[in-house]
Amino acid sequence: MKISTVCEQAGVASTTLKYYIREGLVPEGERVGANKTEYRDAHVQRARLARALIETGGLSVASARLVLAALDAHQDSLAYVFEAAQRALTGGAAAGAAASAQSRKRVGELIGTKNWKATTDNPGYELAAAALDGFGAIGYAPSAEYLAGYADAAATVAATDLGALQSRQDPAEIAELMVVGTVLGDALFAGLRRLAQQHETTLVFPVTEGSQGGGQS
Amino acid sequence: MKISTVCEQAGVASTTLKYYIREGLVPEGERVGANKTEYRDAHVQRARLARALIETGGLSVASARLVLAALDAHQDSLAYVFEAAQRALTGGAAAGAAASAQSRKRVGELIGTKNWKATTDNPGYELAAAALDGFGAIGYAPSAEYLAGYADAAATVAATDLGALQSRQDPAEIAELMVVGTVLGDALFAGLRRLAQQHETTLVFPVTEGSQGGGQS
Repeated sequence: MKISTVCEQAGVASTTLKYYIREGLVPEGERVGANKTEYRDAHVQRARLARALIETGGLSVASARLVLAALDAHQDSLAYVFEAAQRALTGGAAAGAAASAQSRKRVGELIGTKNWKATTDNPGYELAAAALDGFGAIGYAPSAEYLAGYADAAATVAATDLGALQSRQDPAEIAELMVVGTVLGDALFAGLRRLAQQHETTLVFPVTEGSQGGGQS
Repeated sequence: MKISTVCEQAGVASTTLKYYIREGLVPEGERVGANKTEYRDAHVQRARLARALIETGGLSVASARLVLAALDAHQDSLAYVFEAAQRALTGGAAAGAAASAQSRKRVGELIGTKNWKATTDNPGYELAAAALDGFGAIGYAPSAEYLAGYADAAATVAATDLGALQSRQDPAEIAELMVVGTVLGDALFAGLRRLAQQHETTLVFPVTEGSQGGGQS
């Protein structure tokens, strides 16, 4: 197919697709003549995936490149693709300051009570521990019930994620959903959490007269 | 107290505190002489809060300023503070492209089945709908079970969040935890989700020989 067809089917502008190709996110087409380059369905699929990671998932081009490279190199090992996607996603947040030993220990204990098989080099370990340090910075020590509530919710989402993966047959499609789901699942959850919070907050802390209305600030 | 005491107690460097003051995140101290400025506990608390939002939560200085301004203006209305925190946090993700009407409708239906009191101007609405569009871009249509799994987890976390708020008495402390919890709760959840995913993934898709090891990429 022509490059314009790839753009149409993937829903990306021509300049965007050329940029993705130059940055190595989408492979080059095959030259079949002096002025003719041929593209395939795989280009459409890859352009869609790059767009989902960058535009909706908010990944940098460099992070998206890492994730896509892991996807290409390790389609036989989905656990590895998952880990690579997690690393690319978590890099920004966890790169700041290292979490305290105390918070890392607390996350380790939580994993123990849930009986999760997870390793200390999982980037989620550092991310969760850094969040606990942040609570500590305002003098709030999360209770065991608080952590258990979050861990229960995380287990529910992880089981949901894996159920979705098992609904697909083709390993390439499973890997693609794994990568995109890691990125977009965080956004989906954050959105629903805000909606659920609004529901709970208006029940527990009713809005007082005169302070309502999103327009002011 | 002296400015150096504020730095010590809040765990921020002197240049950082001066920057926060110049940017309006922390109020100026009170001049009590030609060369003397007096600071109070409120300065320590505010410096800690600014640091948690920016360093651990990853907020920009501009977003942190909006959140802190909402906190100052509306401590009497916690639902409003929550909304302002949500807006500051979600601005980046939702600002890209508007979600499709179809995905917004799907989020609305999900809210309906959960019987949540949430309004369509809640920023979570747009965030969740944009995530659904991202799944659509790779040809994956999330099933009703998938969305229900995420919604159940979001309800669990929201109830956990509100339980934590009710453990505090002072309205200023409740508002502070609400703001920080909105920012850090996302990070905590994302971390635990990755750990739970690793557990589930290694059960469902065992790592094959030769592709293991986080060191390669």
